[in-house]
Amino acid sequence: EYQMKYSKDSQYTSQVFLVYSAALVFFMQAGFAMICAGAVRKKNVGNSMLKNLLDACGAAIAYFCFGYAFAFGDGSNPNGFIGTTNFFLMGVDNYAFWMFEYAFSAASCTIVAGTLAERCQMAAYLCYSLVLTGFVYPVVSHAIWSPHGFLTSNIQNENPLFGSGVVDFAGGGVVHLVGGCTALFATMILGPRRGRFHDNEGRKLDKPNNFPGHSIALQMLGSFILWFGWYGFNSGSALITSSHERGKLVALCAVNTTLSGGAGGLTALFVNLLILERRLGEPIFDLKMAMNGSLSGLVAITAGCGVVEPWAALLIGIFAGLLYLGGSNLLLKLRLDDAVDAIPIHMVNGMWGLIAVGFVASPRNLNLTYGIEVPHVGWFYSLARGSGDARLLAAQLVGILFILGWCLIIMMPFFVWLDWKGWFRSDPLEEIVGLDTSYHGGLILMSEKRDKATSNIQSSPTRRR
Amino acid sequence: EYQMKYSKDSQYTSQVFLVYSAALVFFMQAGFAMICAGAVRKKNVGNSMLKNLLDACGAAIAYFCFGYAFAFGDGSNPNGFIGTTNFFLMGVDNYAFWMFEYAFSAASCTIVAGTLAERCQMAAYLCYSLVLTGFVYPVVSHAIWSPHGFLTSNIQNENPLFGSGVVDFAGGGVVHLVGGCTALFATMILGPRRGRFHDNEGRKLDKPNNFPGHSIALQMLGSFILWFGWYGFNSGSALITSSHERGKLVALCAVNTTLSGGAGGLTALFVNLLILERRLGEPIFDLKMAMNGSLSGLVAITAGCGVVEPWAALLIGIFAGLLYLGGSNLLLKLRLDDAVDAIPIHMVNGMWGLIAVGFVASPRNLNLTYGIEVPHVGWFYSLARGSGDARLLAAQLVGILFILGWCLIIMMPFFVWLDWKGWFRSDPLEEIVGLDTSYHGGLILMSEKRDKATSNIQSSPTRRR
Amino acid sequence: EYQMKYSKDSQYTSQVFLVYSAALVFFMQAGFAMICAGAVRKKNVGNSMLKNLLDACGAAIAYFCFGYAFAFGDGSNPNGFIGTTNFFLMGVDNYAFWMFEYAFSAASCTIVAGTLAERCQMAAYLCYSLVLTGFVYPVVSHAIWSPHGFLTSNIQNENPLFGSGVVDFAGGGVVHLVGGCTALFATMILGPRRGRFHDNEGRKLDKPNNFPGHSIALQMLGSFILWFGWYGFNSGSALITSSHERGKLVALCAVNTTLSGGAGGLTALFVNLLILERRLGEPIFDLKMAMNGSLSGLVAITAGCGVVEPWAALLIGIFAGLLYLGGSNLLLKLRLDDAVDAIPIHMVNGMWGLIAVGFVASPRNLNLTYGIEVPHVGWFYSLARGSGDARLLAAQLVGILFILGWCLIIMMPFFVWLDWKGWFRSDPLEEIVGLDTSYHGGLILMSEKRDKATSNIQSSPTRRR
Repeated sequence: EYQMKYSKDSQYTSQVFLVYSAALVFFMQAGFAMICAGAVRKKNVGNSMLKNLLDACGAAIAYFCFGYAFAFGDGSNPNGFIGTTNFFLMGVDNYAFWMFEYAFSAASCTIVAGTLAERCQMAAYLCYSLVLTGFVYPVVSHAIWSPHGFLTSNIQNENPLFGSGVVDFAGGGVVHLVGGCTALFATMILGPRRGRFHDNEGRKLDKPNNFPGHSIALQMLGSFILWFGWYGFNSGSALITSSHERGKLVALCAVNTTLSGGAGGLTALFVNLLILERRLGEPIFDLKMAMNGSLSGLVAITAGCGVVEPWAALLIGIFAGLLYLGGSNLLLKLRLDDAVDAIPIHMVNGMWGLIAVGFVASPRNLNLTYGIEVPHVGWFYSLARGSGDARLLAAQLVGILFILGWCLIIMMPFFVWLDWKGWFRSDPLEEIVGLDTSYHGGLILMSEKRDKATSNIQSSPTRRR
Repeated sequence: EYQMKYSKDSQYTSQVFLVYSAALVFFMQAGFAMICAGAVRKKNVGNSMLKNLLDACGAAIAYFCFGYAFAFGDGSNPNGFIGTTNFFLMGVDNYAFWMFEYAFSAASCTIVAGTLAERCQMAAYLCYSLVLTGFVYPVVSHAIWSPHGFLTSNIQNENPLFGSGVVDFAGGGVVHLVGGCTALFATMILGPRRGRFHDNEGRKLDKPNNFPGHSIALQMLGSFILWFGWYGFNSGSALITSSHERGKLVALCAVNTTLSGGAGGLTALFVNLLILERRLGEPIFDLKMAMNGSLSGLVAITAGCGVVEPWAALLIGIFAGLLYLGGSNLLLKLRLDDAVDAIPIHMVNGMWGLIAVGFVASPRNLNLTYGIEVPHVGWFYSLARGSGDARLLAAQLVGILFILGWCLIIMMPFFVWLDWKGWFRSDPLEEIVGLDTSYHGGLILMSEKRDKATSNIQSSPTRRR
Repeated sequence: EYQMKYSKDSQYTSQVFLVYSAALVFFMQAGFAMICAGAVRKKNVGNSMLKNLLDACGAAIAYFCFGYAFAFGDGSNPNGFIGTTNFFLMGVDNYAFWMFEYAFSAASCTIVAGTLAERCQMAAYLCYSLVLTGFVYPVVSHAIWSPHGFLTSNIQNENPLFGSGVVDFAGGGVVHLVGGCTALFATMILGPRRGRFHDNEGRKLDKPNNFPGHSIALQMLGSFILWFGWYGFNSGSALITSSHERGKLVALCAVNTTLSGGAGGLTALFVNLLILERRLGEPIFDLKMAMNGSLSGLVAITAGCGVVEPWAALLIGIFAGLLYLGGSNLLLKLRLDDAVDAIPIHMVNGMWGLIAVGFVASPRNLNLTYGIEVPHVGWFYSLARGSGDARLLAAQLVGILFILGWCLIIMMPFFVWLDWKGWFRSDPLEEIVGLDTSYHGGLILMSEKRDKATSNIQSSPTRRR
């Protein structure tokens, strides 16, 4: 998304539009929660969902207190790295923009919840959550979206990187890559779930053990909710709607989102089917592939939804589906455990989306988005013009490196420290009985139950709240 | 919906409004998925939902490539039957309208998924899906909604059918009747699920066997999601919002939608209760009746939501509830198997909605919708005027006949051909073990499991993805 | 919400905005349904959800016929107690406002459904539902929101209570307190579920028996849907959006809603954790506390979302979390059974929200909301001004007393009468086998099943619809 004129926004329709877009983005929390709930084993459902809810609640408080200030509180004396005013919403007049950005910060945070499911201590997750939404994410969003960020492509910035700046229309890098690469670092330190890659004696398994989720229906619901919310995420990132051109931009984002999501889902489903048919002689329609492929397509188009043409959105989605399959397999080979495949979906395709912008951002749509004649366009277009100007592409790559590096130097030591202290990973016993029992009072409930003769003693799966 | 002025739309609010309406309509995919997931047996949940997701993904690609072109690509040399330009969104400026129409085409397609649940081959469904969204649906939507369609009531058309044209405000015919009658043709060829009407030796059962769905909660959720999405479907069909009158039209559609949905639900619930009380001496509040009755009321008001008065919406809903009960019973008598009762909901009430418009379309609201003095109004109003002008009613009947005939001549031979080739119906064994096993890798997963000693060997219902 | 200028509303954006806000509020029905479905035992899921659906359907018809008329049908000869015109939407031009208010009335009604779950007769619930949406709720909403209501703070009213009137921006009193206190009266008469506080011989249990809900995932989903819908509920209550100030008000409501919901959830979770850690020596993260705490925060900010500052919203949320914990414990001590804790959430925090407005309604935001210089502001602000003017606070307290008293004198005798007639409480046997069996045809289904040899004989939980 692009803040071009947000500070001067005096149009009421833009505010109403932003608030409702923010509501849609907020609803994505329900999508993440349902995906987690469906993908984990019953014994961890409550624990997974609590993390989602805490992200929504905690991000509200953290973003109110300092997150927004770090991200957009530039005041009269701005610097390229971090904001320094507007703590506690003081001096903020554009409530609608705050609301929209809050929903984004919560989304970025909650991406990680799924990856760490079934083996992470509650307290560790709370600490992580605070560090990410309070500091790591705001710095990235300041760098790329604030008019004074050192990577911004905002036209108010007179000296953007390579004369171009990073174009991340709706947060493919700022939100998804941040969440996704943090998930990767976390799972590297945290290790896989018990029995996923090793047997009980610690011997490597020939094939990773799949832990079937407890409800494919909830996973599907979650995926549809995410897709639905993505229209608020991507279209809402137009921020300003009060002209025919901005209205068209809103619609372009929705169209591109749809095409990329659709293409990603079909590609992952059918390529997986072809591969498995070769190996097994049987065509298998894997719903998980279709769901995660769609989400991959949606992630991949996020950075470019306002600046690429629909045909390019289709191509971006197709590659997103392939990258998901490759990324997911690579994770397994590296024996990195990701309970919901958030890393191939959000990290791999967050990167791909930023790179794709460097290739296929069209002059026409860049001009539509920025309201000026944008000098540096996608590499393919500049090749067609005969110039081969790769400044935008270069800026995109720098953007990716910055995000990866920044998350690495902050989050990696933090996770290592948590692990060293013994605060990160759940106790093995806790993991076996399930986190719903260990952190959520299940043990007490269970022993209580045994003492009483009630008509309800049965192994009800949700008893251990 | 009515395209009166859509090509001249230069108002940004209309575009934003359409995009968000389209998002709501898209969310109806989640509603259909939850209804299917809840209504089928556990062994077919994944299969059912994959069909819904593929509809959303496939329709995006098909509508981008040619669906929209066939429906609205009239170009400079239009004909009444089919569009011939705007393939691959080329030359399309109104992205918001594309987005909205895409969501409609996906909805039309996915109506059929529920009916065919638990016994249809995946490949057959994919073919069907492509034919419907790529060709059959676009032709109908061109005929009735394009300014150049041969059945249109668009005021740009100088010579509409009977001087009136078919009034289908939000697609009661174009979307629901198309989906519903295709479902009927499909189930006629496909046959009922094993054990539904016959025992294992093929003898007719005295009473059809009910296959209880695996989750009534998901069915309820799906129904509420559909109702929620219907506000985007019906109100969004106003298309243009940038005047006080259009704003009022948007609100009128929402009010009528609410009243008809409410009346349909109450009617079906209580009439069913009275009938069963007579037969069984016990009052039974059947949630399924209330849910499907509401959906029936919502379908029935779709064609007329912008052109009838609220009291008429209430009556339309009441009859919709009755027609649902009758239609559902008739299906059982004819031994046609419909896993989610999509035929009485979408086909019967799609027809009823179109007919109702012919009777009760009010002059006041027709003028509000079309922005001109509409000459031919609902038959009751013209009777009251003393003229008995039934041209609108006649046009509506022709519209129904066209849709039924068109779907019949295209889809029926197609389904017969699929069946003759042996590509339509699942293998009996596949049907018994469940489609989640047969098409989605369950067999392999199951045999794998047996080879390994993991802590997870238990008959987890969602293992067979 | 405040009707300041709604009758003169001629701006189309406001109408579109209201319709979509109403759709969001309508979607809260799905949230309530999922919370109920998740919180009750499997044997009562269908029954609980049917009540939610009937609320949505029944309220549509009742609000169309007379609810809206009683609430806002002031006509040319208004009185302070009840409206007397506009029955059957006659003479109503502002359909968008009707739609929005309908969704509110349905929400008010459905709050009670959860509390009474698992033990209330269907017919009794239907009668209750009609009385509440048709009469009790409209009178309250007339008193507080109609320009002629005797408690209104509408600036069209020349002589408001204490010169101020009751400020209930989005219905913390009108909707939540009405629903919540009705739930309290109902459970007092209806009594607790069997085995909740007493054993089978009627001896008091030392500790209440918890009946674990059948799906924590559905409860979580319901809570997220409610929070999502709350943005329509609170922001939509700005009613008019067609100026920069109104747009800002819409956004302010959303920000306050977010902060209070987040603070409520965190407070309830962590205070409960601290208390339990003291008692049990083990930290327990109770998801139910986080969910209900969030909902409490959302209820508490409803009355004041447009008139308090964000920091005050945070405080209101913190106290809401505490009040939820206290209220929930108090209910247990009083042996009042509330299956979903609707009483501490909606009643206690509905009151708290109204009181909080009396303390912290800020002059700046009151002026923003009412468009004039509002004379009587929150007590803390007037203390700071050195005046100590407590007229607004006094008006708020009178508002609370009126709502409690009005619900008491109408609903209490009604419930007592129902109970005396034996129409309120389910039969003990029905309660034990579950209401899905007793009211929804389960018995017949069960006996049918036994007669037939089908492949589906297994104790499927959703068979007894």
